[in-house]
Amino acid sequence: MSTQRESAPNTARRNEASRRAILMAAFDLVGEVGYAKLSIEGIAARAGVGKQTIYRWWPSKGAVLFDAFLALAEGSDDSSALPDTGDLQADLTTVLRATVEEFGDPRFDTPMRALSTEIAHDPALAEMYAERLDRPMRELKKERLRSAQRTGELPADLDLDVAIDLVWGPLHNRWLHRSGPLTPEYAEALVATALNGLRHASASE
Amino acid sequence: MSTQRESAPNTARRNEASRRAILMAAFDLVGEVGYAKLSIEGIAARAGVGKQTIYRWWPSKGAVLFDAFLALAEGSDDSSALPDTGDLQADLTTVLRATVEEFGDPRFDTPMRALSTEIAHDPALAEMYAERLDRPMRELKKERLRSAQRTGELPADLDLDVAIDLVWGPLHNRWLHRSGPLTPEYAEALVATALNGLRHASASE
Repeated sequence: MSTQRESAPNTARRNEASRRAILMAAFDLVGEVGYAKLSIEGIAARAGVGKQTIYRWWPSKGAVLFDAFLALAEGSDDSSALPDTGDLQADLTTVLRATVEEFGDPRFDTPMRALSTEIAHDPALAEMYAERLDRPMRELKKERLRSAQRTGELPADLDLDVAIDLVWGPLHNRWLHRSGPLTPEYAEALVATALNGLRHASASE
Repeated sequence: MSTQRESAPNTARRNEASRRAILMAAFDLVGEVGYAKLSIEGIAARAGVGKQTIYRWWPSKGAVLFDAFLALAEGSDDSSALPDTGDLQADLTTVLRATVEEFGDPRFDTPMRALSTEIAHDPALAEMYAERLDRPMRELKKERLRSAQRTGELPADLDLDVAIDLVWGPLHNRWLHRSGPLTPEYAEALVATALNGLRHASASE
């Protein structure tokens, strides 16, 4: 009886606590068992909630996992502006070195791989990802490049989407396919070569 | 009894026919049902062979699929030299436009996605892929870049691995994550921007 008379704010708090527990459980579990073996049942058991609580809020395990990443991104520096010291090459190198470090952390590696490959096979999830996670992050990157355009570091008519793909694409690709070592030096070389171009790049730069 | 007396050349021919049927079945099936639902049983049924025939040659469905791609690559232009007209930008644009077209073909899209994401989750397969497929193709790309170094189109001390990642990485990435339209124009912009660099690029080029 007391449950039914419980106040709305209490219910909201409890819902929020359950939601957080579910997202954290999904994130941790996918790192432990992989995406294929991730299940709503497993997430519910780990979070200490009933399966129905999860199904009330999310249609699939992919949707839960996606929201877990979104919560993570919202709580991290990814959602804030890129550094802007006035030196584009130095700032991009800082950002890419941080990404290299993140990719090297096993706590993030497996969940990120799971989301990444799930997106590759699920166009609906890819669209959700593009809209809610990739587009806002891309906008922050564009802001930094626009600032460099204003100061004359970059040409005014540069295609910013192509520019972002050139700087960040190779790093993501090497990480996902383990096609080479992910080192701070690689991050530096990538930024220098992208900014100067293959024609003007120099390995000693 | 006749089976036991069959000549060795006949057996070799039959083995080769079975091997081809199995590889083709794996390639077609993964496109139809996806990697998760691909099974040795399914491949055997489609190829018209017994399961044991497959297990005699391959330890897993991933290994079968990998060999199917290898057979495809060996039979395609990917295994031959890149065009060399003396104009690096034109030649790379030709190659990347062809890749864009290949990525757009549903017959290749699903199997390539399956292999790509399987590699992301399986370090042993990633190593096999790197050694048997990526490294030889990368060597062909390096040959074309070395030729441009000899003619002075590219600096002698350019890091060729970084250069290859810059030209090909963004394309693969956009394809896998469907993060933007894969068009001939994108291929052109990518090559131009990679060669000239963000600092020297011009959208109108």
